[in-house]
Amino acid sequence: MTTPLRLGIAGLGTVGVGVVKIVRQKANLLAQRSGRPVVISAVSARSRDKDRSVNLDAYAWEDDPVALAQRDDVDVFVELMGGHEGAARLATEAALAAGKDVVTANKALLAHHGQSLAETAEAKGCVIRFEAAVAGGIPVIKALTEGLAGNDITRVMGVMNGTCNYILTRMQDAGLPYDQVFAEAEALGYLEADPNLDVGGIDAGHKLALLASIAFGTRVDFAGVELEGIQRIAIEDIHQAAELGYRIKLLGVAQMTGRGLEQRMSPCLVPEESPLGQLKGGTNMVVIEGDAVEQVVLRGPGAGEGPTASAVMGDVMDIARGLRISTFGIPARELAEAKVAQSNSPAPYYLHLTLEDRPGALAKIATVLGENGISIDRMRQTRHSDTNAPVLIVTHKTQRAALDTAVEAMRATGVMVNDPVALRIETV
Amino acid sequence: MTTPLRLGIAGLGTVGVGVVKIVRQKANLLAQRSGRPVVISAVSARSRDKDRSVNLDAYAWEDDPVALAQRDDVDVFVELMGGHEGAARLATEAALAAGKDVVTANKALLAHHGQSLAETAEAKGCVIRFEAAVAGGIPVIKALTEGLAGNDITRVMGVMNGTCNYILTRMQDAGLPYDQVFAEAEALGYLEADPNLDVGGIDAGHKLALLASIAFGTRVDFAGVELEGIQRIAIEDIHQAAELGYRIKLLGVAQMTGRGLEQRMSPCLVPEESPLGQLKGGTNMVVIEGDAVEQVVLRGPGAGEGPTASAVMGDVMDIARGLRISTFGIPARELAEAKVAQSNSPAPYYLHLTLEDRPGALAKIATVLGENGISIDRMRQTRHSDTNAPVLIVTHKTQRAALDTAVEAMRATGVMVNDPVALRIETV
Repeated sequence: MTTPLRLGIAGLGTVGVGVVKIVRQKANLLAQRSGRPVVISAVSARSRDKDRSVNLDAYAWEDDPVALAQRDDVDVFVELMGGHEGAARLATEAALAAGKDVVTANKALLAHHGQSLAETAEAKGCVIRFEAAVAGGIPVIKALTEGLAGNDITRVMGVMNGTCNYILTRMQDAGLPYDQVFAEAEALGYLEADPNLDVGGIDAGHKLALLASIAFGTRVDFAGVELEGIQRIAIEDIHQAAELGYRIKLLGVAQMTGRGLEQRMSPCLVPEESPLGQLKGGTNMVVIEGDAVEQVVLRGPGAGEGPTASAVMGDVMDIARGLRISTFGIPARELAEAKVAQSNSPAPYYLHLTLEDRPGALAKIATVLGENGISIDRMRQTRHSDTNAPVLIVTHKTQRAALDTAVEAMRATGVMVNDPVALRIETV
Repeated sequence: MTTPLRLGIAGLGTVGVGVVKIVRQKANLLAQRSGRPVVISAVSARSRDKDRSVNLDAYAWEDDPVALAQRDDVDVFVELMGGHEGAARLATEAALAAGKDVVTANKALLAHHGQSLAETAEAKGCVIRFEAAVAGGIPVIKALTEGLAGNDITRVMGVMNGTCNYILTRMQDAGLPYDQVFAEAEALGYLEADPNLDVGGIDAGHKLALLASIAFGTRVDFAGVELEGIQRIAIEDIHQAAELGYRIKLLGVAQMTGRGLEQRMSPCLVPEESPLGQLKGGTNMVVIEGDAVEQVVLRGPGAGEGPTASAVMGDVMDIARGLRISTFGIPARELAEAKVAQSNSPAPYYLHLTLEDRPGALAKIATVLGENGISIDRMRQTRHSDTNAPVLIVTHKTQRAALDTAVEAMRATGVMVNDPVALRIETV
């Protein structure tokens, strides 16, 4: 097979330029590995004149990505624009309608429209590949969809937003409060234009929803992801967690339960000596658990020109080599509607309470926990101001519902000064 | 495509039984994921009567794996017998000659005969897949061959023999000498019939040679792997390394240099806080570095029924889904002859010397190092018997050749009581 595979690349930001560089610089290697030349026919971006430090003269230029997607000399539409509506969606739909395969790094697009896009693709005999949409350079979509295809997947977890992990790591290392580190990250350009996409857990939630679909054969259900961001994580809790042997991570967890599919993206405590606990800075990690494989842990850079372009090219090479696979691992029409289960799998919890410093206050709290069937693994009173007594509690495994009930009852005792901090401790 | 994919499984040990269980128990899932039924036509093993806790009645039985490989009702020959000659080789060759695809867990077979088998396969239009041959359940062959196909791979490293890692971890945790932990591991059934395959680094060396072939597009060259086992690792060195902030691991490293391909499997020091340093017990880890992706780290179980069967089934599912790919990532005839380079990439080294306790002894050693251009990062004299002075040295980066020359010159000084211990410190 020596017919070239012809790419049309829409979006020439960091990742797009990275892809162009690889195609230009590694033509021989790519041809040798895939058995056919991989070439670029045309490109598209908002501004034609911007200096992108790579020569684009050999490629046709399209101002309109939809036109690019429909070109006769394009076999694969490479969508690197981003955004789940507008041009990215229109051009992707146009590409599929025109019978083109699609490679995309766009997690938002697939989290919102994955089902309809996958159905369209499969009706047209096209494939959609999206390795770059989840965990940057880590070939996790491939591992989950292909390498572990003989497993019933039991749980997928991951730290998949490098910016959040940078902020949390930096808070701990430098002993700085959230607001200050957030400002640093913003100044360094680490945050999305809408920072809530990062620190609110939305970006990572998109990724989790995609992994869950493949893992459990269910339709992508981003709306079913319980989202909690890192904005309320206090440096004090990071320190207290560390003293107890834990790290706080924005952790996504998807697991199928008897009640349905649990998907949550929230700050959790993980043991500091676990692979997740060891993860620093912008690095991503995904943990996949299956009934046969037990546990596989994948770690790598979550963003950046090279790593993301590497993931895009992995998909391009798969298409060049002739791999045709359903978008989410099984035919889109066979994906089950995900039955949303509120996150209620038992886990230990970290509780940080601030009590009025008066006799019997702690007894009231302990009584409330006991009445709700929550037993205490460890408890300590940390410091002591004139009027307040901060108390840390690590519970034995309990359900979130029981904990929420207990927290309500604690409020009713009148001995709590602040809202309590309650963070799940994820067993890794 | 609803034609079933029909397997012939040769070898019904732990892994073979694991594969049979998955095919039996997950028929619907496998069919849904691959688009066609995956079935077993026939099986073969040494003893038909053994109780294997799985019902084999539905499958034809062949005493002779060659006959199994040639059956008309077999599409994929699944070779789980092991051994690089004899039945495994004969049956694999017979399968390819008959135009069957091959899935194998046999690292020795491919390390010794990979080139000829791959050439035969490709001439016949067949594929050979071997995910289970390297690092158990970790989908590392897939990651390297497919996911990272857009990269020039710069280095591949791994801890890929769980038994050795168990022994080294256990020595450290329990403070026990090598011989005692080796005996424990033998009693627990962790060792191959020929233990030198494990502790001599041969098994892990086979795996490294396979990874190197894919990474660098070179013919598998097991003979070019510099092998050093863990038999001479003393508990004292494990403790000393720990005090310096390192762990000792049997680490495989393959890298392409200007001089040729370096492949070494040897005990190395790695930083204790690195992913490799954190690795305990039988778990495996592979680190892949590429020019685009930077670094990806994969971790998972290196052996066992479930994990290894998971890897075998990943390959089977790829074939069921229609993936056709060259055995080592590029056509076998295009694989370059590996130019063997002696391992000489600069690295810091750990030196453990025992000197006669007399004036000027240390000065002589320091002089020899200086004369060979080796500078000292850290040095400490550890304890002191009546007549001997043990000395630990961490050098700055140097080349192995310079170190070997220096060690020869140290011997000539006459102040050394024992042969020195010299272990590479691998930068991770």
